[in-house]
Amino acid sequence: MLIVNAVEKMRSLADQYRNTGKTIALVPTMGFLHEGHLSLIRRARSEADVLVTSIFVNPIQFGPNEDLDKYPKDLQRDIILAQDAGTDVLFVPVAKEVYPENFQTFVNVKELTRGLCGKTRPNHFEGVTTVVAKLFHIVKPHVAVFGQKDAQQALVIKRMIDDLCFDVRMFISPIVREDDGLALSSRNKYLTPEQRRRAGILYKSLCLAREMIKNGEKDVSVIKKCMKKEITAQQGKVDYIEIVLPDTLQPVGELTGNILIALAVYIGETRLIDNMLLHLSG
Amino acid sequence: MLIVNAVEKMRSLADQYRNTGKTIALVPTMGFLHEGHLSLIRRARSEADVLVTSIFVNPIQFGPNEDLDKYPKDLQRDIILAQDAGTDVLFVPVAKEVYPENFQTFVNVKELTRGLCGKTRPNHFEGVTTVVAKLFHIVKPHVAVFGQKDAQQALVIKRMIDDLCFDVRMFISPIVREDDGLALSSRNKYLTPEQRRRAGILYKSLCLAREMIKNGEKDVSVIKKCMKKEITAQQGKVDYIEIVLPDTLQPVGELTGNILIALAVYIGETRLIDNMLLHLSG
Repeated sequence: MLIVNAVEKMRSLADQYRNTGKTIALVPTMGFLHEGHLSLIRRARSEADVLVTSIFVNPIQFGPNEDLDKYPKDLQRDIILAQDAGTDVLFVPVAKEVYPENFQTFVNVKELTRGLCGKTRPNHFEGVTTVVAKLFHIVKPHVAVFGQKDAQQALVIKRMIDDLCFDVRMFISPIVREDDGLALSSRNKYLTPEQRRRAGILYKSLCLAREMIKNGEKDVSVIKKCMKKEITAQQGKVDYIEIVLPDTLQPVGELTGNILIALAVYIGETRLIDNMLLHLSG
Repeated sequence: MLIVNAVEKMRSLADQYRNTGKTIALVPTMGFLHEGHLSLIRRARSEADVLVTSIFVNPIQFGPNEDLDKYPKDLQRDIILAQDAGTDVLFVPVAKEVYPENFQTFVNVKELTRGLCGKTRPNHFEGVTTVVAKLFHIVKPHVAVFGQKDAQQALVIKRMIDDLCFDVRMFISPIVREDDGLALSSRNKYLTPEQRRRAGILYKSLCLAREMIKNGEKDVSVIKKCMKKEITAQQGKVDYIEIVLPDTLQPVGELTGNILIALAVYIGETRLIDNMLLHLSG
């Protein structure tokens, strides 16, 4: 596995691969890799000749009071994990080169970023789409793989790809969960053992919603209320619980067809997100 | 010369060229080609194997009360001119395909777009950078050529290229002028013969400024006042006259080093722009 730090080096490597007819897959990550990331890397491995995993804790997608400074890091461990999962090139740029002085160009997906996480984290998605656009231009992938865990992010990036005519095929990989259902996230590291036990409630509340719908509940507000009650009983603080259309993120009127149940919950100081896609026949 | 309308066709052509080792140059235009455009096309011709000229009157760079609907068009003439100047592929997409329903992703260069034309035309540069980003992704050029006539636009696009790590080399071609100094522009077409005679005043006022500086004038406000007086005497209505640093577009304090004198003037209803770069030894 090659480890590349310089933007120019990565770009000329990408040219080299393309000029010799090789296809490139990219898995962009913020590092501190877990089984969720590794499932993306393995998926990407089967989609192209050369697999690039990037590790970059992107400062511009963090708000002023968020966890940029304490975001977990373990590059030595990441190197081993990325390589074992099949990475050919680990691209680890430094922030100073990604955002030089006078940097002032941003990519914005306007409507899909308004609700859900966009409400609590106003410049988050602008940071995400800007860095992903840059990574696409540097790594020049034919294929990129993102996780369904960040459902809104995946939709926003797909929209950016289509709207700006990026020639990149995008794959979305399913959520990987712990035994109790907790979705894997680098931020789970912040949880104390006691908080970790309570954090299972995000997934349990999603399962509760699914169960209620299966049993005939038609009222979105009743479902959201029950989810909130369960979460609060575990001392979780709800940021949002929404039931939306999976392609527009607009609140559903009726519980029919494809729906996305998405939530963000604080367990202690740690903000966790999760979601569930349902296909309802009703 | 090939004429291509479909985005997908243009993209696969671009892939074909790149896969056979050919380099691509792009000259983006809004059509109604004149000698200014043709000088860009000829410049691009010498920079790559395949030369793509695009013609697209980009609706999102026009304000609500601007001249989108009456913007001059003559595709038959453009086809002949583009071909004669050396174009290999004329890319003429349709607005419905460039901006499908639900289009919502925009590229923004934040600081450089605030002054000069950005003040009078608040969403203009967002429209420009967004469409140029799209054209870069569709045509996949190694090289792109823009005109110095739109000095701020050229600087904004250069900033976008650098900030978003586009792998595109950019060339800026000099302004082409009529005998009386009027910079070529498709919008000159709007002028009545009488307005056309008066329109020479934009360039004349730039020459006046150059002359005043050469003769030792040190006060920017005095120079701007004299320019304005000359323009007003020709019934021109000044939108702005600015003397700025050519790389930041910030107003100059002292008349020394490189400076850009830029102006926008209404002759009748028609808004014309022009500029002059000076290198001062003082």
